[in-house]
Amino acid sequence: MIGEIIAIGDELTSGRITNTTSGYAARELFFAGHEIQAMHTIGDAPELIGSTLKTALDRSDFVIVTGGLGATTDDLTNEAVISALNLKTVVHPCVKARIDVRLAQEQCSDGVSLAKLALLPEGAEVLDDDCRMAGYLLRHNGKLIYFLPGIPPQMETLLAAKVLPGLDAFSAAANIPVCQQIYRTCGLQEIEINRRLLALERNDAVQLGYYPVGCEVHISLTLRNLKKGRTDPLFLEMDAFIRQSLGDALFGIGNETLAAIVGQLAQQRGIMLCTAESCSGGLIAGTITETPGSSQWFGGGVIVYSNELKHLLLNIDRSLLADYGAVSAETARAMATQAALQLNCDLAVSATGIAGPGGGSAEKPVGTVYLGLYYQNKVMDRLCHFTGSRRQIQEKTAQTALDLVRRALLER
Amino acid sequence: MIGEIIAIGDELTSGRITNTTSGYAARELFFAGHEIQAMHTIGDAPELIGSTLKTALDRSDFVIVTGGLGATTDDLTNEAVISALNLKTVVHPCVKARIDVRLAQEQCSDGVSLAKLALLPEGAEVLDDDCRMAGYLLRHNGKLIYFLPGIPPQMETLLAAKVLPGLDAFSAAANIPVCQQIYRTCGLQEIEINRRLLALERNDAVQLGYYPVGCEVHISLTLRNLKKGRTDPLFLEMDAFIRQSLGDALFGIGNETLAAIVGQLAQQRGIMLCTAESCSGGLIAGTITETPGSSQWFGGGVIVYSNELKHLLLNIDRSLLADYGAVSAETARAMATQAALQLNCDLAVSATGIAGPGGGSAEKPVGTVYLGLYYQNKVMDRLCHFTGSRRQIQEKTAQTALDLVRRALLER
Repeated sequence: MIGEIIAIGDELTSGRITNTTSGYAARELFFAGHEIQAMHTIGDAPELIGSTLKTALDRSDFVIVTGGLGATTDDLTNEAVISALNLKTVVHPCVKARIDVRLAQEQCSDGVSLAKLALLPEGAEVLDDDCRMAGYLLRHNGKLIYFLPGIPPQMETLLAAKVLPGLDAFSAAANIPVCQQIYRTCGLQEIEINRRLLALERNDAVQLGYYPVGCEVHISLTLRNLKKGRTDPLFLEMDAFIRQSLGDALFGIGNETLAAIVGQLAQQRGIMLCTAESCSGGLIAGTITETPGSSQWFGGGVIVYSNELKHLLLNIDRSLLADYGAVSAETARAMATQAALQLNCDLAVSATGIAGPGGGSAEKPVGTVYLGLYYQNKVMDRLCHFTGSRRQIQEKTAQTALDLVRRALLER
Repeated sequence: MIGEIIAIGDELTSGRITNTTSGYAARELFFAGHEIQAMHTIGDAPELIGSTLKTALDRSDFVIVTGGLGATTDDLTNEAVISALNLKTVVHPCVKARIDVRLAQEQCSDGVSLAKLALLPEGAEVLDDDCRMAGYLLRHNGKLIYFLPGIPPQMETLLAAKVLPGLDAFSAAANIPVCQQIYRTCGLQEIEINRRLLALERNDAVQLGYYPVGCEVHISLTLRNLKKGRTDPLFLEMDAFIRQSLGDALFGIGNETLAAIVGQLAQQRGIMLCTAESCSGGLIAGTITETPGSSQWFGGGVIVYSNELKHLLLNIDRSLLADYGAVSAETARAMATQAALQLNCDLAVSATGIAGPGGGSAEKPVGTVYLGLYYQNKVMDRLCHFTGSRRQIQEKTAQTALDLVRRALLER
């Protein structure tokens, strides 16, 4: 079935709180075989809530509305829907009874505002059997409208317990299975990947999406109406084609991060990694240590921002720095080699470059980065030219350094 | 001015990627004195994109559309707006020239797909002066429509450089004076700040917003219709009250970051900083080196993730680690002291703790972090208890460490 999600609250439209519940609900609904064609975030404005709901009902099979169901003065969802759909207001007996119990227990509560919680549109089917959580189903002109609390754990609970089963029952006939897979790559440009996979797009049953994230590109493959899901011949054929097209640029599936993959490879080989960073300023190590359990395969690193520290911590010859410059293949190689030696690790990756905005020259413009890698008595370097802001250049440096490690570990 | 935001992409409506750009834009626009009444997330469906845009234009002063501007086949925003608003398609000369340069440089690129990037609606004013990033302004029936790339850093860059100034100029012409100031704090909880500033909220002319960002809280003061802007007595009175209420928790105004403020203080005192990190894994250094010009006051650091490296790089006694544990005030102090000594810097800040999700105990639960600071022959430590995910604990550690440095530099 096709649906829409409406999240309500001034705290969301002012950007004060990031709306995560809509994305969560969309993902759960997508995996359950439904399609969300639009999500809306609306401030606490009854008329706009009403018009958005009516528009959504006109073109969708179901609508999920989250937030604005509480007892405070800025909770206006019930008033908005009652007005927009010309419904009567009724006192819901179960909710009323629950409020009375609560008022008896908590002396300090404000009965007048709590009473508002029991005022629901006529026909509302309260979702929580105990009437503790706000939230109800409204059937309107053959469409389903679910109203859920804006509080994420309550929304998630009711979504799983009531909404998904309710939608399933409603669309008994239409069980449309969706099969999706995400491919994560590093080292190929989005446009090159698009070119390699263009042949697949000629098949109407196949939907591809491309999502660049710095130097990574993630590709989504979506197939609908597959009889056998992931064992269906069409899925297997598409999957094999994509894997072959992407080659060794493909590093992970689903939610696997580059750092996590590097960690798996390092642990399989029983080795410890370390880092020696200049322009990336700790971001390679920061990306690695974001991964839980990274202490199993990451010993640590040095951030040798100044030439003084390159000499002091890594024993890099001052003459080498003077002859070739801090931003050079020679320095990157020496940083990696010395880091492995001084930090007593098996593999060391290094980065030295110009993150900008200052410091660039005609010969070495902003974005020039040399990576170095030491592993098994061999040392290599790679010259990169990154574009973007200072932070983007640093992030691309960290991604590419991790990809260099991944490829080195795969080779040997 | 009143606006709406439309984010486009199947990856958003399927919940595969959380839409963070809309919330980011809403916050920046709110800070700039505008009101976002609704945000929409739409799949790659041209008709729905078109109808949503038209509805938004009917009721708002401006609309910001993000995503779907790329060269791949699932990028459909331009087609959608051209069809919805009955516009002509033109080849934009600057974008076309940029594509030709790119095609000449990259032999492998696909000219046919790239050419799509230059096909824009008639009247499109391209935002990036170099025509590298996608994005343009369309003026339609006295309303502004900004089309921005879906890639967060590009969207953020164009929003700051073009959209906010553009809206300012537009609203200045419409004579809507808004006077806004952002106060950035570290060390006070949102609820405590709210309590201290409550008196201001009684004034209807004053609008306050509170935005917690990890351990920082940013406060926005918005005053409308002030005759003299920032020299107006009401603004000066409010500003003085807020500054006094926040005290030394206030570290910056507007876009000043904690790291930039620390850099200013360090440069005033002519000193070099260094870091010694365990649980934060390079994030303190990463936050520092995000600041342009940080090489002037930041020498570098060590990431001593393993106990082995704590000993090897910082000469921390193995007996100290055995007696007190790696996560202890004693280790944090020794890390700071030894870092200043070994890295030959004037001030060293250190962090050792348990970022989780594993590694916690009853005595030292996940989120336990000891910070250490060495400066002018004195060493101090601070015990913190942070909550949240592994990454949030690491980020709060980095923020609090920088705030510790700031306070130490202010004192002496």
